[in-house]
Amino acid sequence: MHIWTDRLVELGITLPRVAEPVGGYAPAIRSGMHVYTSGQLPFVGGTLPLTGKLGDDVDVAQAADLARTAALNALAAVNALVGLDSVARVIKVTGYVASCPSFTDQAKVINGASTFLHEVFGQAGIHARSAVGVAVLPLNSPVEVELHVELDS
Amino acid sequence: MHIWTDRLVELGITLPRVAEPVGGYAPAIRSGMHVYTSGQLPFVGGTLPLTGKLGDDVDVAQAADLARTAALNALAAVNALVGLDSVARVIKVTGYVASCPSFTDQAKVINGASTFLHEVFGQAGIHARSAVGVAVLPLNSPVEVELHVELDS
Amino acid sequence: MHIWTDRLVELGITLPRVAEPVGGYAPAIRSGMHVYTSGQLPFVGGTLPLTGKLGDDVDVAQAADLARTAALNALAAVNALVGLDSVARVIKVTGYVASCPSFTDQAKVINGASTFLHEVFGQAGIHARSAVGVAVLPLNSPVEVELHVELDS
Repeated sequence: MHIWTDRLVELGITLPRVAEPVGGYAPAIRSGMHVYTSGQLPFVGGTLPLTGKLGDDVDVAQAADLARTAALNALAAVNALVGLDSVARVIKVTGYVASCPSFTDQAKVINGASTFLHEVFGQAGIHARSAVGVAVLPLNSPVEVELHVELDS
Repeated sequence: MHIWTDRLVELGITLPRVAEPVGGYAPAIRSGMHVYTSGQLPFVGGTLPLTGKLGDDVDVAQAADLARTAALNALAAVNALVGLDSVARVIKVTGYVASCPSFTDQAKVINGASTFLHEVFGQAGIHARSAVGVAVLPLNSPVEVELHVELDS
Repeated sequence: MHIWTDRLVELGITLPRVAEPVGGYAPAIRSGMHVYTSGQLPFVGGTLPLTGKLGDDVDVAQAADLARTAALNALAAVNALVGLDSVARVIKVTGYVASCPSFTDQAKVINGASTFLHEVFGQAGIHARSAVGVAVLPLNSPVEVELHVELDS
């Protein structure tokens, strides 16, 4: 058992409440020793702090912050399902960045999520990652982040 | 062993024939107790019923229907590989929606797949999900859906 | 133990050096008998041979070559982590193609990766695959490819 929840307290981070999606899906699903989250938007208190696209309405620093928030929401989903302290490590992050065709700094945006996971989990937070620039995201969100984590056996 | 095939009969659904892709890939691959499908297009009898993008040529209701069809094709791929009744549960759905930059209802489109999986599998159909709006999809398909399912041990 | 490294020699292919990403992520991560790579760009000697989008700056044949290179880089990441000869099979390929909205031949582009994996691994290289057309990729890369492979137990 790890003490990631203590680490969150040290970092001054509170896990948000998980909004249950309507319809036939869930914020996260466990399969054996793995948890897969749904693609998480950077909701804060049920609202997107910013909407729009990189290269137009939203800049890299703002979007990196949103990627961090989306990763936090993903951790909240994991925590609600299995308890954060049962996480052994982060395996994979997929980060979608709503991008104008000329914006090519998707990596810097998703670094907001990667750096956050490293802060929380240390070496166990080092993950494989894909960052891509998509045309548009649900509710005009600038970013969407999904996680695949492994649990302690 | 489950009786998902009986459930399909109840719902009046027939699994379509699986078209074998040309090239070095397959409609679905098994790894241990998991099956991963290829991204499935909403072919009906070898043809896409509609082409184009959301926010332009195709509306939400039409695309939700196509997402359902793509999910059905994914189940057909699972069935051809391992038999549908060996499915324990659906783990993850990734839904790609070909979107004009102003279209932000990707979730409503992919609900067509999520609702269908819930109808067929009940609680075992509840999955993690990502819905994203991409620039364009193969053959100008409006949607593409991939599944990750867990098998009975 | 397989002899994929011998097969690479037969094919006249040298695995490139793996560039370590900066930040909280890695080129590839192992979880049990699975390895997940990060999304790989078609770097050759640290540089992208071409940039831009399909349907505009880059044609299908060029991009299929880049997809092959990205898949080679993914294999190099797997090799650096666990040794290529411990690969049992390729499970999944996700191929992102930077596309103008009118370009619909993403499958032909990602065939460059699929055919390459088939050449190296034979039947064990047959994978599930998703090919999607995204708005833009990091550093204006025309393609990005990620792999999920299973290891020998």
